[in-house]
Amino acid sequence: MKLRENEINDHNNLLKGSHKVRFDFLSKLIPESESIISKLINFQIAIPSWALGSGGTRFGRFPGGGEPRNLEEKIEDVGLLHKLNCSSGAISLHIPWDVPKDYRAIKNLAAEYGLRFDAMNSNTFQDQEEQVESYKFGSLQHVNKAVRKQAIEHNIEVIKHGIELGSKSLTVWLADGSCFPGQLNFRKAFQNTLESLREIYAALPDDWKMFVEYKAYEPNFYSTTVGDWGQSLLFTSKLGPKAYTLVDLGHHLPNANIEQIVSLLLMEGKLGGFHFNDSKYGDDDLTTGSIKPYQLFLIFNELIDGMDERNMNHASGLGWMIDASHNLKDPLEDILQSVEAIMIAYAQALLIDRAALKEAQLSNDVTSAQEILQNAFRTDVRALVAEARFRSGGALSPLKLFREIGVRNQLIKERGSKTIATGL
Amino acid sequence: MKLRENEINDHNNLLKGSHKVRFDFLSKLIPESESIISKLINFQIAIPSWALGSGGTRFGRFPGGGEPRNLEEKIEDVGLLHKLNCSSGAISLHIPWDVPKDYRAIKNLAAEYGLRFDAMNSNTFQDQEEQVESYKFGSLQHVNKAVRKQAIEHNIEVIKHGIELGSKSLTVWLADGSCFPGQLNFRKAFQNTLESLREIYAALPDDWKMFVEYKAYEPNFYSTTVGDWGQSLLFTSKLGPKAYTLVDLGHHLPNANIEQIVSLLLMEGKLGGFHFNDSKYGDDDLTTGSIKPYQLFLIFNELIDGMDERNMNHASGLGWMIDASHNLKDPLEDILQSVEAIMIAYAQALLIDRAALKEAQLSNDVTSAQEILQNAFRTDVRALVAEARFRSGGALSPLKLFREIGVRNQLIKERGSKTIATGL
Amino acid sequence: MKLRENEINDHNNLLKGSHKVRFDFLSKLIPESESIISKLINFQIAIPSWALGSGGTRFGRFPGGGEPRNLEEKIEDVGLLHKLNCSSGAISLHIPWDVPKDYRAIKNLAAEYGLRFDAMNSNTFQDQEEQVESYKFGSLQHVNKAVRKQAIEHNIEVIKHGIELGSKSLTVWLADGSCFPGQLNFRKAFQNTLESLREIYAALPDDWKMFVEYKAYEPNFYSTTVGDWGQSLLFTSKLGPKAYTLVDLGHHLPNANIEQIVSLLLMEGKLGGFHFNDSKYGDDDLTTGSIKPYQLFLIFNELIDGMDERNMNHASGLGWMIDASHNLKDPLEDILQSVEAIMIAYAQALLIDRAALKEAQLSNDVTSAQEILQNAFRTDVRALVAEARFRSGGALSPLKLFREIGVRNQLIKERGSKTIATGL
Amino acid sequence: MKLRENEINDHNNLLKGSHKVRFDFLSKLIPESESIISKLINFQIAIPSWALGSGGTRFGRFPGGGEPRNLEEKIEDVGLLHKLNCSSGAISLHIPWDVPKDYRAIKNLAAEYGLRFDAMNSNTFQDQEEQVESYKFGSLQHVNKAVRKQAIEHNIEVIKHGIELGSKSLTVWLADGSCFPGQLNFRKAFQNTLESLREIYAALPDDWKMFVEYKAYEPNFYSTTVGDWGQSLLFTSKLGPKAYTLVDLGHHLPNANIEQIVSLLLMEGKLGGFHFNDSKYGDDDLTTGSIKPYQLFLIFNELIDGMDERNMNHASGLGWMIDASHNLKDPLEDILQSVEAIMIAYAQALLIDRAALKEAQLSNDVTSAQEILQNAFRTDVRALVAEARFRSGGALSPLKLFREIGVRNQLIKERGSKTIATGL
Repeated sequence: MKLRENEINDHNNLLKGSHKVRFDFLSKLIPESESIISKLINFQIAIPSWALGSGGTRFGRFPGGGEPRNLEEKIEDVGLLHKLNCSSGAISLHIPWDVPKDYRAIKNLAAEYGLRFDAMNSNTFQDQEEQVESYKFGSLQHVNKAVRKQAIEHNIEVIKHGIELGSKSLTVWLADGSCFPGQLNFRKAFQNTLESLREIYAALPDDWKMFVEYKAYEPNFYSTTVGDWGQSLLFTSKLGPKAYTLVDLGHHLPNANIEQIVSLLLMEGKLGGFHFNDSKYGDDDLTTGSIKPYQLFLIFNELIDGMDERNMNHASGLGWMIDASHNLKDPLEDILQSVEAIMIAYAQALLIDRAALKEAQLSNDVTSAQEILQNAFRTDVRALVAEARFRSGGALSPLKLFREIGVRNQLIKERGSKTIATGL
Repeated sequence: MKLRENEINDHNNLLKGSHKVRFDFLSKLIPESESIISKLINFQIAIPSWALGSGGTRFGRFPGGGEPRNLEEKIEDVGLLHKLNCSSGAISLHIPWDVPKDYRAIKNLAAEYGLRFDAMNSNTFQDQEEQVESYKFGSLQHVNKAVRKQAIEHNIEVIKHGIELGSKSLTVWLADGSCFPGQLNFRKAFQNTLESLREIYAALPDDWKMFVEYKAYEPNFYSTTVGDWGQSLLFTSKLGPKAYTLVDLGHHLPNANIEQIVSLLLMEGKLGGFHFNDSKYGDDDLTTGSIKPYQLFLIFNELIDGMDERNMNHASGLGWMIDASHNLKDPLEDILQSVEAIMIAYAQALLIDRAALKEAQLSNDVTSAQEILQNAFRTDVRALVAEARFRSGGALSPLKLFREIGVRNQLIKERGSKTIATGL
Repeated sequence: MKLRENEINDHNNLLKGSHKVRFDFLSKLIPESESIISKLINFQIAIPSWALGSGGTRFGRFPGGGEPRNLEEKIEDVGLLHKLNCSSGAISLHIPWDVPKDYRAIKNLAAEYGLRFDAMNSNTFQDQEEQVESYKFGSLQHVNKAVRKQAIEHNIEVIKHGIELGSKSLTVWLADGSCFPGQLNFRKAFQNTLESLREIYAALPDDWKMFVEYKAYEPNFYSTTVGDWGQSLLFTSKLGPKAYTLVDLGHHLPNANIEQIVSLLLMEGKLGGFHFNDSKYGDDDLTTGSIKPYQLFLIFNELIDGMDERNMNHASGLGWMIDASHNLKDPLEDILQSVEAIMIAYAQALLIDRAALKEAQLSNDVTSAQEILQNAFRTDVRALVAEARFRSGGALSPLKLFREIGVRNQLIKERGSKTIATGL
Repeated sequence: MKLRENEINDHNNLLKGSHKVRFDFLSKLIPESESIISKLINFQIAIPSWALGSGGTRFGRFPGGGEPRNLEEKIEDVGLLHKLNCSSGAISLHIPWDVPKDYRAIKNLAAEYGLRFDAMNSNTFQDQEEQVESYKFGSLQHVNKAVRKQAIEHNIEVIKHGIELGSKSLTVWLADGSCFPGQLNFRKAFQNTLESLREIYAALPDDWKMFVEYKAYEPNFYSTTVGDWGQSLLFTSKLGPKAYTLVDLGHHLPNANIEQIVSLLLMEGKLGGFHFNDSKYGDDDLTTGSIKPYQLFLIFNELIDGMDERNMNHASGLGWMIDASHNLKDPLEDILQSVEAIMIAYAQALLIDRAALKEAQLSNDVTSAQEILQNAFRTDVRALVAEARFRSGGALSPLKLFREIGVRNQLIKERGSKTIATGL
C-alpha cells in the first residue's frame, strides 16, 4: 500500500495551526532548538524485517491480518512507515527469512522508498527445513566441528547477501548456551565460538562491522555463551577492530545499569549498535519507551556524551535498530510508537545543559546534577520532534494519519487476513 | 512400547548387591527408615500429558523422535515411566489437546497401567481452529462478555471430561493480563475474572477441587491478572471452600521465598497443589531439582510440617504434578530425573529431626536450626528412594534401565522420528 | 532558621515573568488546569522526622552539618520546607527518637508552622539503651511472650503520644523475620504477630487507622514476616476495619508491578497509605522520582482511578509520606526534589483523559491506551505545580530559593557542623 | 581462650567409633578417597578479622558478648577455629581496624597458632577520625585529586603493613560509585580509578598480587565503578600481570551465573580469589552454603576444572576467604559452618567423574551430564571432610566441641559482654 499524493499534506494542514503554537512556544524557550531539529532530521532508526508481523510467545501467537508475505511487502511496509515519520529510513534483513531473489530489483524497490539496508542478521538459533546439522545444542559453540562449519558458512552467506544489497554490517546474535549445569564446558564453548567468529570475521569486507550481541538468558536457561557485555567485549577485543558489541535493551539481568555499560563500551571504542525495545521482566520486547522512558533518556545521555567525546556522528556512528515483538498491537503502529519514543529521548538528551552538568559533577553537587537531567527530561519536546518530521515531509502525527487512512484495513484487503509474516 | 516381562527383574538382579550395601548402611543410620520408605511408596507424582514431547521457546523447537501422537500413546508413555519408577501413577490431561474419544477405553487403558487421572487442565491462552472468540486480550478477564462466556463454557466442558475419567480437580491457569500500562483496568479485570471463575466453580462437583494457579509474568509482560499468591488467595477465598491456590515453582519474581508462601497457604487451608520444575531466571521449566535442590528440600520441609499440623495425608492431601518443558533432553528421561529429585527432597525432608528443630526455634538457636536442616539435606538418601521403588516392583535405577533397553529408539521405530506431540 | 519576611516574595517577583509565560501557555492547552491546580494545592505530603539528617548504610555514614538536634528543630526544618513549597504540611514522628517532653509546646510549635502530625511510627527493630528484652530475633513475632509484650506496650505508648499530638494513625513496620532456613516456624511467627497486632489494634482509638507495612527483605535476609502485600492484607483483613496496608515503593522484589498492587488494595478497601522513595536495586531509599518517574506516574494513575471510584478525597483519603534516606545530598534539598516529583506525577495523572482511556480499554485498543497515558506523562506540567505553590504563598522555585538564601550554611551556623540527627 | 591439652582428643575418642563406620563405608565406595582427603587437608580458608564480631545492618546491630577487642584477640579467635577444624590457617587483616603495633610480636603470635597472613584489605569506604579528605563521593574515582591521593597513600600503607607481616596480596574493594543519574561521569570515574590503581600497583612488590573486587551495588545505589566482572577485568587487564579479579559470591545482580564468570576468569588467567558467603537477595553476607549449596558446588566444579587445566595448585593458586556478616549467630559458630560447607562443596566437586562428564559433553548427552554432577553432589561426603580434619589433629565435630567446652561463655568471661569488635 502506498500513500496517496496529498494525504500527508492534507493531514498536516489540519494540524499545522496547533502545532505551530506549541513549536513557537518551545523554540523560544530553547535557544538550541534549530540545532536539535537538524540532528533529529538526520537520525534514522532501522526497522527489522521480522517485526512487521505479529510476534508471539511459546504459549501462542495471535496474528492480525495484512502481514507482509515476502521481502517486497516488508520493504513496502517500512517504506510506508518512513513516509509517515521520515525517521525509519533503513531496513534490517534476516536470513534465511529474507533471502532476496533479485538483488537489483530489491535494491531498486528500497531506493524508491528511500531506504538503506542496515545490518544483516544471521539465524543459527533455529533449524531450517533443508539444514543438514541441527542447532539444538548450539551453533558457533558446538562440540561438533561440522555444525560450527555449517553455522560459519551460513554467516558468510549472509555477508554475501549484504554486500549485494549495500549493507555494511553483520549482527551475530547467538542463542548458544546451555540449559543445565554440566551440559557445557564453558571455556570450550567460548573457544569454539571465538574460533568460529574468527572465520566469519575473516570473510568480512574491510568497510564492514561485525556486531556481537549479548543476552543474559533465553532460549537457553542456564548459561549463554555470549551472556553479558563483558563476554561480548572479550570476543570483540580478541577479534579485531571491525568487531563491536551490540546492546539490546532487553538482554540484561534484573536492575542492570545499562547506561553505564553503554558509556564504558564507548570509552573502549567498542560499542557498535543498539537494539531498542523495552521490558519489565526479561526480554519482553515491548514498545520502546513504554515501560522505562527515563532509562531510555539516560542511555541517550550517555550515547551523546560518549559519541561527542569521540567526535562520532550521531546518525552514522552507531547502528540504530528497533528489535521488538508485537504480540498485541498492530506491528506498524507499535513501530511508530517506538520511533517516536526514541526521537523524544534523543531530543531530551540533546537538551541537557552539558556544561552545567560537568560543573555539578566536578563539585559533587548531586542535587544539581539530578536537576539538570530532570529539567531536560521533563521538558515536552514533542513539538520539536514533530517539526523535524514536518520539515522532512513527514506527517505531524504519523499514528493519527495511519489510522485515518485505514492502513491496516487496506493491507488486509490487499494481502488477506490470514497471512503470517516470517519471524518469531 | 511395553517392558518385557523380566526386564525390571533382570536389571534389579544386577544392581541388587551394591544397592543392598548402601541400603543396609543407611537403614542402620536412620531409625525411621521403614516409615520413610512406606511414605515414599505412597507418594505419586502426576505427569502432564503435554510434557511427553519436546518443548520449545518462542525462538524454536528441536523435536526428538518417537513423541506420542495421541492420548493413548501419552498414557502408554506415562505407564512406562510408572512401571520403571512406581512413582508416576497419575496423568494430568489438557483440553483440547487430550479430548478422549471413548472414555471407557481410555479409562481401561489407564487402569491397565495403574494410572489415575489427576487434575484436568483447561486452555484459554491459545486460539483453537474452530474457536469463535479470540483470547488475544484475555479470556476470563475479557472486557467482552461473549469471550468470557466461551472461556467459561470451555472450562465447564473440561470438568465434564474429567468427571467421565474420574478426575477430581480442575486446574485453571490463566495467561490473562496485559502487555502495556493502560491496556487494562486492573480492578475490572479482577472482577470479570472473579465472576467468570464463579460460574465455573458453580459447575464443579461437590467432591472436586478448583486450583487457581498464579504466575508473575509471561506470556503477558506488564501485568498478570492472577499474578501472585496474594491475588490467587483473594480469588480462592472469595470463591469458596472448593477453591485452592496452586503453586508452580517457576511462577515467581526473582528471589521470592516460595517455602514461606507454601507455609502460609497451608496455614490458611488454601494450598491446593504443586507444579514441580526448576528455574534460574523466569519460568524456565527446567528439570525439578536441577538448579536449586536446597530450595526444593526447604519447600518439602514446609509441606510436611504444614500438612502434618493439619493431619493431611501426604500422598492425597495436595495435588502433586510435574510441569516442565523438555527442550533439550529426552522428555521421558527428563521426567525420570524430576521424579527422582522430588522423591529425594521428600525423603530428606522426612529425615528432619522436628522435635530438635522446634526446640532450636523456641530458643532462637539459629546455628542449630541450620545444622538440623543441613544434616537432613546432606544425607545421601538415594538408597531409601531406590528401596521404596524396589519394593513396589520398580527398577533400582529407572534411568539406567530406560537407556539399556533403548526405549527412545523403540519409540522412534514405533511412531516415527518426525512425530510432534501436542504441547508448547 | 526562619525565612525573612519578603524572601519568598522577592524570589517570586524575579521569576514571575517567565513563569507566567509558561503557565499561560499550559493553561490554554489544558482546559481542566484550574481544577488540577486546586487539587495540587490541597495535596500535602508528610515529612518523616528521621529523614531530616544524613542517612547511611551499614558501611558508613557521611553526615553533613546543621542537622536538627531535637524534635523542635525537626519541626522547624519541616516548617521551612512547607513554607517554601506549601506541600509539606505534616510531620511524621518516630518513637523513641521523637518523644515529646511537652505536648502543648510541641503542638503550638507545629501549628505556628502550619504543620499537622501525620502517622506515628514505632520502632521495634532496634534495641534501646534502657530496654529489657532484645529484638534481635524479632518483636511482635518473637517466640518469647515477654518480648512480644514489650513490643506491644511500646506500640501502645506510641499511640498515646500520637493522641496527645492529634495524630490519627500508627504505622507498624516490622523488621521481624529470619536470616536462615529453619530459624523460624513461619506459621507460628505469623500467629504470634497477628496476636500482638490484635492487642495493639485494641488500643487504637476509634478514629485511628493502623498501617501494616510490608517489606520483602532487609534487615532480615531469608524471610520477613510481613513480607509482601498478600501477607499484609492477610493481617489487616483479620484485624478489622481500622487496619490498612501501607505501600513503600522500595519494599518489593525485583520487577514487581506496584501499580497493580495499589489498584487491588484500593479495590479491597484496604490501602492505607504510601511511603514515597525510589530505588534501582532494593530498598535504596533514593529521592522519589529519581530513577523510575514513569512508574510513579502509573501509580498515581491507579491511585486517582481507584480513589475516585470509591469517592475518596485525594488529599485525606490515604496517608502520604516520604520515606527516604539522604546519604549524599543535603536532606532538605532532597526532600524538596521528592515533593516536586510527587506533585508532577500527581498533576500528570490528573491530566489523563479517563473517558478516552476507558473507551480504549473497552475496545482493547492497546495502542491508544498507551498513547493516552504517554500523552499525559509527556506533558510538561511544572508550571501547573509552580502555580499551585505560588497561589498558596510558596516559592516558584523552592530549591533555587533554598540555595540563594544559604539555608544549609545558616543551619550549620546555628546548630554546628557535627550534629547528627536521630535516624538511620 | 585456648583449648586445653586433651580436649580435642577426648572429643574425638567419643565420636571416633561412629565416624569410622561412616568413613569406612564411604572410602569403600570412593576409590579416590585418599587423594581427596589429602587435598582437603591442604585446603585452607582465610578468616577475615572483621567477621569475628557481630555484624549489623543500617537498621541496627545486636552484639553478642566476648568479641575480640584488638588484633591479638582476633588472632586468638582464628587460632581457636583453626585448632578445631584445621582448615582456617590464615587471617585476613583490614586497615585501619587492624594496624599492628609490633609486627614481630604479631607475627610470632600468629605463628604460634599456625596462621598465615592472607590478603590485606584497605578501607576507603568510610571516613576515619583523623582523615583530611572525605570519601563521601568516592575515593580512587574522586573528582578531586587530593582525595584520590589520600586513598592511594592509604593503600600503599596497607601494602607496607602486609610486607611486614608476610602477606602477599592486597584486596581493593571500592564502594566508589554514585547514587543518582548525573552524579558521575562514568568514563571519568573509570579513568580516575584506573590511574589511582596504577599508582598502587606500582607500589606492589614483585611477588604480590592485587585483587580488584567488583560489586553490583551497595553502598552506592545507582552505579558502582567496579560494578561487575567485566569492569574488574578491564581494570586488571590494563593494570598488568599482578592484577587479578576477585569474586565475592554476594556481589552480583539477581540470577547471575557465577560459575560461568569463574570459568571465564580462569580461562583468561585473571581470577585472583574468592570471598565466600551466601545470599538470597543482595549482598546478604549469610553463612556460606546456607541458601544455595548447589551453586557453591557448581562453582567448585568450575574452579577445579579450570585450575587443573592451568596446573594451578588448589590450595595456593587462588586466594580463599570467607567474607560474611554474622548478624544473628555466634560469629565463630557461623564461621565453622561456613568452612564446613566449603569443604563439603570442594570434596563433592573433587568426586565428579570428569572423564565421564567430558564424554557426556562431547556427545551432548545433557541427561548424563546432569546425572554425573548430581551423583557427586548427592553423595554424603561429610565423613571424608571429618577424616581430613581428624588426620590433621582437628575435631571430628568442631561445632559440637565448640559448644561442649563453652567457648562463648569463656570469651565473655575473659573479655566482657559489652565488647564490640571493629567491623561493620
